[in-house]
Amino acid sequence: MAVVRPENAHQARLLRLLRDDGPRSRAELGDAVDLARSRLAAEADRLIERGLVENAGPAASRGGRRSPLLRLAATVRFAGVIVSPQRIDVAVTDGELAVLARTSEPADVRAGPEAICARVVELIGKLRAELGLNQLTAVGVGLPAPVAFAEGVPVSPPALPGWHRFPIRETLAADLGCPVLVDNDANLMALGEKHAGTARAFDDFLHLKLGSAIGCGLVLGGQVYRGATSGAGDIAHLRLADDGPLCACGDNGCLEAYSGDAALVREAVTAARTGRSTVLAERLDEAGELTVLDVARAATGGDAAAQALVRAAARRLGQILVGLVSFFNPGIVIIGGVAPGIGPVLLAEIRGLVYRRSTPLSTGTMPIVLSDLDDCAGVIGAARLASDHVLTPA
Amino acid sequence: MAVVRPENAHQARLLRLLRDDGPRSRAELGDAVDLARSRLAAEADRLIERGLVENAGPAASRGGRRSPLLRLAATVRFAGVIVSPQRIDVAVTDGELAVLARTSEPADVRAGPEAICARVVELIGKLRAELGLNQLTAVGVGLPAPVAFAEGVPVSPPALPGWHRFPIRETLAADLGCPVLVDNDANLMALGEKHAGTARAFDDFLHLKLGSAIGCGLVLGGQVYRGATSGAGDIAHLRLADDGPLCACGDNGCLEAYSGDAALVREAVTAARTGRSTVLAERLDEAGELTVLDVARAATGGDAAAQALVRAAARRLGQILVGLVSFFNPGIVIIGGVAPGIGPVLLAEIRGLVYRRSTPLSTGTMPIVLSDLDDCAGVIGAARLASDHVLTPA
Repeated sequence: MAVVRPENAHQARLLRLLRDDGPRSRAELGDAVDLARSRLAAEADRLIERGLVENAGPAASRGGRRSPLLRLAATVRFAGVIVSPQRIDVAVTDGELAVLARTSEPADVRAGPEAICARVVELIGKLRAELGLNQLTAVGVGLPAPVAFAEGVPVSPPALPGWHRFPIRETLAADLGCPVLVDNDANLMALGEKHAGTARAFDDFLHLKLGSAIGCGLVLGGQVYRGATSGAGDIAHLRLADDGPLCACGDNGCLEAYSGDAALVREAVTAARTGRSTVLAERLDEAGELTVLDVARAATGGDAAAQALVRAAARRLGQILVGLVSFFNPGIVIIGGVAPGIGPVLLAEIRGLVYRRSTPLSTGTMPIVLSDLDDCAGVIGAARLASDHVLTPA
Repeated sequence: MAVVRPENAHQARLLRLLRDDGPRSRAELGDAVDLARSRLAAEADRLIERGLVENAGPAASRGGRRSPLLRLAATVRFAGVIVSPQRIDVAVTDGELAVLARTSEPADVRAGPEAICARVVELIGKLRAELGLNQLTAVGVGLPAPVAFAEGVPVSPPALPGWHRFPIRETLAADLGCPVLVDNDANLMALGEKHAGTARAFDDFLHLKLGSAIGCGLVLGGQVYRGATSGAGDIAHLRLADDGPLCACGDNGCLEAYSGDAALVREAVTAARTGRSTVLAERLDEAGELTVLDVARAATGGDAAAQALVRAAARRLGQILVGLVSFFNPGIVIIGGVAPGIGPVLLAEIRGLVYRRSTPLSTGTMPIVLSDLDDCAGVIGAARLASDHVLTPA
């Protein structure tokens, strides 16, 4: 297929403004990109002619003549995909990256990359049919894995056994018939926060991703920072103690082995079996297993043992965060992937550690907050990555 | 005084090319900045007219007509200053940041910022007299402290008691009669490595500064990354253990309390007194005290206890570095400020840890090397910072 992309840097800037700030009049666009009126008119007309932009009716009156608004065309549609160890999330968005339709299903990444790719194609197809879309403009995909960004392949991913260097970008692009971009999921969550979350106002920030696979996305100067070989933010397997609990990666004492969902559940089962928590013991008897939601519910309900588990996990996160904050001096830290209800206990513990131990220059005015995008940050960020690609001159 | 600065972005690019790559013909400059011949000629003539650039004689013949070279004018002169806890280093450089003259003297930062500033002015005056210079173009100053870069003041510096928010930039600028820029010394060492050291070829790297005050400079995308409030790279007081040795900052178990020069000396004195090292015991008897150079000499000479001390310090550095490398994924790690002879033992230990424990994606091709700039990186970086400022359009 032929993807329509901007012909020059001016067109790219206009398209990104319309994506990030929504419909704008020609006058507003001209001011924002500092282009002469005639040049702006020519570029805007060209974008309309090429089907990337359309007229959106008159702006709200400000007393004078109503000027017509431009917006990204209704044919500009992106999909964002997040593959987690146990589920697939897919969203289709409009050009401004507002979610038009969403779906998700349980999945097991150990089924291998071919099987998961087939499900992704299927789920995207379902949403396209629902929305009556012939074609997507581009698709972004996030994996819970180190991803060599330039090649679009996961590299030695502890959470994705069997996926090492699988050509996921090429496979999906061939099946979907549009450009596909692949990145680490924590990077995409950070990008989603930058586009639509609390981080919108910040150019330098950290997004810490909790859950079954822990990760961290860095935005520096408004851009995702991936490092020399796309490995930046890879914190799950930083070692906190040589004699710590065994991690899924085969090593001992990794952050994830203390603070990942599996660790919380393991400790909760122990608390239930040793009589430290009757709430958890009852739940375990009833359901035959415990999940991180059970731990969250028990902690929120005031169970002291569950709260102690959450605090212990938070302390380990805090230990790592102290280093990251001192090293990287972000404007804000956003924490996502937190099980419902756990937030306040977790934040109190993390804030205590970070504000006490980091240098005053780094933390003087630095907020530590929970994500307010619920579980949308990843798919929005994936759509944003895809849009960044196609809204760049070829 | 009036500082002559470039009038536009083209002039700034030409000046930086001449600074970074040395004398160039007009044709070479035109190629590098992609300017039409007539426009280039006009900008170059204007730079000569304003005294920033001068003719440097003909280029080496390449068979045809010899084209004349341009270079930064002989009146473009920078100074770089590094204030360490126990000494002041000053260098004056030419426009290409080659060191023309250097001096240093012992100093004690506890004498306070006014006294140290007076010594800096005196030392710069001495070098100016030596070189017959009326005027410096700009001066860069590095401090072993968190520095609020926009304001040019140190903020709560553990290594500089009494310096909190002292207006060092304004004080020196008034005394020296030229623009002064102030930054954290580790940032400046990183900038020096970028200009003249191993890191010249890298856009993303870490520079780890050992010695009496430990620090880390980050270069991202070719620029020093300072973070949201100029605190990036501040790793000296990351805590490795709650029950670790007391640090000069008043806290326990900081990296510097394990791996700083003072820690090495303290452990060496213990090794001497407890009979673990006869070499160190003899040296302590003889001199009445030990320095980090004594430890280095003993380790290089094969003393097992001294080697064990260096390895222990290196392990703590390695522990921190594992996190930084995973998090930041640099193209190279450069270690500076290492006492003579200690390098091989230190590197072996650090490399062992980092390559074993960091993720393969981050360390696959990442070298860890010692700085080859000896103790010049800081003053060259300080001069570079000063030059970046004045080679930017006002």
